[in-house]
Amino acid sequence: MLHILVINAGSSSLKYQFFNMDNREVLAKGICERIGAGGHMRHSVAGKVVLEKDTDMPDHSVAVENVLAALTDADYGVISDMSMVDAVGHRVLHGGQKFSGSMVVNDAVLAAIEECIPLGPLHNPANLMGIRACQKVMPGVPQVAVFETAFHQTMPEQSYLYAIPYEYYEKYGIRKYGFHGTSHRYVSARCAELYGKPAEELKIITCHLGNGSSVAAVKGGKCFDTSMGLTPLDGLVMGTRCGSIDPAVVGFISEQTGASASDVVTMLNKESGLLAVSGISGDYRDVSAADEAGNHRAHIAREMLFQSIKRYIGGYAAEMGGVDALVFTAGIGENNDYLRQRVADGLEFMGISVDPAKNAGRGEDREISAEGARVRTFVISTDEELMIAMDTEELTSK
Amino acid sequence: MLHILVINAGSSSLKYQFFNMDNREVLAKGICERIGAGGHMRHSVAGKVVLEKDTDMPDHSVAVENVLAALTDADYGVISDMSMVDAVGHRVLHGGQKFSGSMVVNDAVLAAIEECIPLGPLHNPANLMGIRACQKVMPGVPQVAVFETAFHQTMPEQSYLYAIPYEYYEKYGIRKYGFHGTSHRYVSARCAELYGKPAEELKIITCHLGNGSSVAAVKGGKCFDTSMGLTPLDGLVMGTRCGSIDPAVVGFISEQTGASASDVVTMLNKESGLLAVSGISGDYRDVSAADEAGNHRAHIAREMLFQSIKRYIGGYAAEMGGVDALVFTAGIGENNDYLRQRVADGLEFMGISVDPAKNAGRGEDREISAEGARVRTFVISTDEELMIAMDTEELTSK
Repeated sequence: MLHILVINAGSSSLKYQFFNMDNREVLAKGICERIGAGGHMRHSVAGKVVLEKDTDMPDHSVAVENVLAALTDADYGVISDMSMVDAVGHRVLHGGQKFSGSMVVNDAVLAAIEECIPLGPLHNPANLMGIRACQKVMPGVPQVAVFETAFHQTMPEQSYLYAIPYEYYEKYGIRKYGFHGTSHRYVSARCAELYGKPAEELKIITCHLGNGSSVAAVKGGKCFDTSMGLTPLDGLVMGTRCGSIDPAVVGFISEQTGASASDVVTMLNKESGLLAVSGISGDYRDVSAADEAGNHRAHIAREMLFQSIKRYIGGYAAEMGGVDALVFTAGIGENNDYLRQRVADGLEFMGISVDPAKNAGRGEDREISAEGARVRTFVISTDEELMIAMDTEELTSK
Repeated sequence: MLHILVINAGSSSLKYQFFNMDNREVLAKGICERIGAGGHMRHSVAGKVVLEKDTDMPDHSVAVENVLAALTDADYGVISDMSMVDAVGHRVLHGGQKFSGSMVVNDAVLAAIEECIPLGPLHNPANLMGIRACQKVMPGVPQVAVFETAFHQTMPEQSYLYAIPYEYYEKYGIRKYGFHGTSHRYVSARCAELYGKPAEELKIITCHLGNGSSVAAVKGGKCFDTSMGLTPLDGLVMGTRCGSIDPAVVGFISEQTGASASDVVTMLNKESGLLAVSGISGDYRDVSAADEAGNHRAHIAREMLFQSIKRYIGGYAAEMGGVDALVFTAGIGENNDYLRQRVADGLEFMGISVDPAKNAGRGEDREISAEGARVRTFVISTDEELMIAMDTEELTSK
């Protein structure tokens, strides 16, 4: 039996899932929070919380020790000994231009993740803490880094370059990177499986719609374009992020209010999106409820979201010279039949049409296209943790 | 005979065309340059330069006096007396949210144009100088203001609002305005004429591709969406403007270089676009020549332009629920068959297809669609001055 621990480390948190890779089952999962400022842990086995406690976690290493203790606990443990953890897979936000795939961690990889800190100033340092904590607590156990940007590294120059002076690209690495790569990779591969054709023969548009949202154009199994850019701010309207706007707005607000460019960008990341337009919430469910109750600004917020998704679907089909399949995934994409219907409405001209009954269904990965639709539409549950575990297995089980 | 003078005033220049509206003929046209810093004037009649001289023009009023003198000159004049100028139409960049159509100038209109100066800080003051100069030199002659933003005022809220805190919209008027409105209005109306259906029944995508470029989605004769935003920086890759990029890039460059947000936006306006990517020129013709000579960066610059046009065509068709006609106009759009072919290539999935022989032709407004194409594609010469003259005639000849 091969066991893989998947870790998503934040600056003061550490989320984890523990997989039995023989059947890809999640044996246990949980979260450590308030690391460095107290400490709280919740641990579940087979979907049931078996441990919830405040416990002192001064750093990520202690958090990892707590995770291992829970996994090997005499009462509710799922393995008898920590030597049964065969490898650890880590979510890493930004791999810059250095990584087009997942990597077994070594000193060079660590140094490269560190070099990418300016591109991922909030996440990369935390991801590094997670890796170093595991190296310390589990010396000898292989660690794998899986980058949110890696899948998008296949974009052609005309997709990833910005039309700004070349020196900014060469000197500071300013270009489009794209994010949610693990999800877009997972669902596009799964879509090809459900379609019954090799990914190499398909043009797929994947809509990852969650708290953060992005669209990817996947041509022949490779990312051709994606809606997020240098940072996760660009593209679709999101919970609290503005998505694509005139970049001159940053200068205009800065001039009018005296705020620095960084302050304005922080506002565009944290106080914008559905939250700003609706004036109610950044949570799509709250905005929907308010819209249905007759709130005009909530209505406009939803319409903006629908329209921005439509624009990317049409735009990416045009860039790829057509589209064979459309995928909805992540929290909003998987759970909102009204959103999927509204996005599909009016796209009949490009062969997209959704069957209301199939669309209303729930549960497993499925096709929701209307009979005879030229483009096949799917709802697929994304599973970034499983994808990280699979990469980790592949890279370490030779 | 009705005569209308059309004026496009810049901060140190004044371009003009003089129309006989009975047959819409341009009787004379010209430009005054270096106003306030010397002065130079060139005046043509029937396409032939009849006057070119350095002459002292301390302000726009003196420039207008020179224009009237040339129009009434004993040798090459086209009218005998300045009283034969029936009205003057002025191009005005920014009408903010105040104007959804052209207006006869009065004190309230002048005040409103002045209020819009923060939105058009370079152009509106110059446009005002042009109007005031004509009022001074030709008292009693009606003046009409034609706004570049007016046609886009029909956009629905989900198109024009940005997903940023509502107070920025209410307090500073930060929203999408769009530009080139006079051109998009002119060519979409002309397209409906050539199509043989009322504009009210058509969905048209108009691509104004010049030194500045924008795309508009025109649904039922009204603008539904457009690619430029608060300012003319957003949207397509242009000669020296970056078009759509992650707004966080402004903050990132500001942090890395210490430049202010305004400085960064100036760089994105003046040193970016085709110029920056190619490293050669902001002129599409130069970039094309370099590409054809094997220059890689010039090649990428062109590919970025083609791809950005495709993305808007697909995106706007999706927003409108389909498209009946596609229009290419302005310098690049009218004169580059290769660009039109490359943009259309791969859009067969949405019913767009161009006939190479028709596309290679030159000259008058024409359809270039392939036989049987579901979407009809046109090349139409834009004529913003004529449109301004027509508005001026309509508003003043009651």
